[in-house]
Amino acid sequence: MNIYSKLNSIIDKNNSMVCVGLDSAMEKIPTHLQKERYPQYAFNKALIDATADLVCAYKPNSAFYEARGEAGMKELKMTFDYIHNKYPNVLTILDAKRADIGSTNEGYAKYIFDYLGADCVTLHPYLGKEALKPFLARKNKGSIILCRTSNPGAGEFQDLIIDGEPLYLKVAGHVKKDWNRNNNCLLVVGATYPEEMKKIRSLVGDTPFLVPGIGAQGGDIEKAVTYGRDRNGKGIIINSGRNVIFASNKEDFALKARKEVEKLKDEINKYR
Amino acid sequence: MNIYSKLNSIIDKNNSMVCVGLDSAMEKIPTHLQKERYPQYAFNKALIDATADLVCAYKPNSAFYEARGEAGMKELKMTFDYIHNKYPNVLTILDAKRADIGSTNEGYAKYIFDYLGADCVTLHPYLGKEALKPFLARKNKGSIILCRTSNPGAGEFQDLIIDGEPLYLKVAGHVKKDWNRNNNCLLVVGATYPEEMKKIRSLVGDTPFLVPGIGAQGGDIEKAVTYGRDRNGKGIIINSGRNVIFASNKEDFALKARKEVEKLKDEINKYR
Repeated sequence: MNIYSKLNSIIDKNNSMVCVGLDSAMEKIPTHLQKERYPQYAFNKALIDATADLVCAYKPNSAFYEARGEAGMKELKMTFDYIHNKYPNVLTILDAKRADIGSTNEGYAKYIFDYLGADCVTLHPYLGKEALKPFLARKNKGSIILCRTSNPGAGEFQDLIIDGEPLYLKVAGHVKKDWNRNNNCLLVVGATYPEEMKKIRSLVGDTPFLVPGIGAQGGDIEKAVTYGRDRNGKGIIINSGRNVIFASNKEDFALKARKEVEKLKDEINKYR
Repeated sequence: MNIYSKLNSIIDKNNSMVCVGLDSAMEKIPTHLQKERYPQYAFNKALIDATADLVCAYKPNSAFYEARGEAGMKELKMTFDYIHNKYPNVLTILDAKRADIGSTNEGYAKYIFDYLGADCVTLHPYLGKEALKPFLARKNKGSIILCRTSNPGAGEFQDLIIDGEPLYLKVAGHVKKDWNRNNNCLLVVGATYPEEMKKIRSLVGDTPFLVPGIGAQGGDIEKAVTYGRDRNGKGIIINSGRNVIFASNKEDFALKARKEVEKLKDEINKYR
C-alpha cells in the first residue's frame, strides 16, 4: 500500500492528524514502571492502547532506545511489533535521522523497514538522492526528508541563500521534482517556523509534512495547520512528544496522555 | 586528554594514519565464524589483534550492527570495550552520522561517548551548531562533521554556491571559525574529491580530516595524502573498510587484513 494512501486512510478513519512521539526516555518513565522487565515497552504499550483511536501515527525516536543499548533496541522492536499487530492501520515512523553512503544505507533500510517494520523513516538530505536510493526505492515505505528543522539554530545552514532561494527550499524543490518518483517522500517542517512552512507548502503542492515543534518547543498550532495543510485539509502529521507522554508521572499517565491527544486533535481540526 | 593529542600520539607511536573501518556486515563474515556465539565481535577481535600496531584508529559503522538488532548492538559494545581495554592508545570512532535537535542529541552523546566509550562520532551539519552542542561541549571527545562526503552524488547539495562559495566550504568555515572552540572538531572529506579536499585544507589550517573513499570507492591515496595532510604531515585519518576486513573469507582473514594494512600504511607514508 502506498504510504500516502495509508496516511490519508488513517487521517480519515480517526479524524486526526496527531502523531504521538514515543520519546520514552528511561529516566522520565513513571516510577512504578521502572521495575518492569520491559519498562519502555510497558510505557509505550499503555500509551498506544490509550490513544490508538485518536492518532494518525506513532513516532518513536531511536535515540531514546539506543541510549539503553541492547535492552532499548529490543523494546523498540517490541513497540513496533505491538503497533503492527494490534493497530495495523496506524502509521509508524522511526525518527532516526539517518543518511550514509548508499551501500551502508542498504543496511539501515533493511533494519528499519524489514526488521522493525517501520512505515517511514526520517533522513538527512546532505548526501543527496544518490546515497538515499535504498530508502527512496522502497515504493511502499516513506522517506521523510529533513527540510526545515524545528530547532532554534536551524537557520545556520538551512537559511543560506542559493540563487535567491534558501537551502531549505532547495531541498524541498529537489525532493518534489526529482526524489519523489515513487510518491513516497515526505518533508520535516518545524512548527516553530510558520513563514518558512508557508513557502514550502506553496512550492511542493500536496507532499505531506511531518511537523515537530509544537508543545515544549513552542510552535503554534493554528499557524502550523493553516500554513501546513494541503488542498484537502490534510497533509500534515503533527507530532507531540513530551507534552503527551509525560503529561503525568503517576499511574494515570495513559489517561492523561489520552486527554492531551484529544485536546490537540480538536485544536488541529478546528483550523483544518 | 584532548582528541587531537590522542590522534597525534598514536600516529607517531604506530607511524600510521590508517583507520580500519569495522564494517563487519554479518553476511560477509567468514563462514567459519558465523556459528560463533558472537560472530561480529569474534571477527573484529581477530582483526584488531592483527592490526593494532599498524593503525591510528578503528571505525565501526553503526549500521552494520544495528542491522542485527539487539545482538549487533551488544557486539558493537563488546568491540569498543575490547579496544579500550587492550589497545587504549588507539582512537575509536563510531561512524553513526547522527544529528537531531539538542535534547535528543543529549541521549545520543551519552550512548556514544559514555556507554560505548567512543572517542569520536561522525555528525551531519544540517541542523547547525546549536543542535550539536551536546557533542561539541564534550572537550575530550571528537565531533567529526560531514563536510565533503565520498559518494558519487555528494555534490547535489554540497556543491551549491552561496556567496561564491560551495556549501561544503561553508560548512568547513563554520566549523573552523565557530564550532571548534574546544579543539575537538574534525571533518569528513572524501578521498574521491581531491580538488575539494585541497580547498578545504587551505581553508581550515590543521583541523584533522577523516578520509573515507579509498579502496572500493576508488579514491587515490597519493592525492588524498598530498592534498589532505596538515603542515606537520599528519592530520588525516585514512579509512579502509571492505578492502581490509574482507581481504580473505577464509581462516587467514586476519593475516590478509594485516598485509593490506601494511601496504596501505606504507603507501600513505610514502607521500607524507
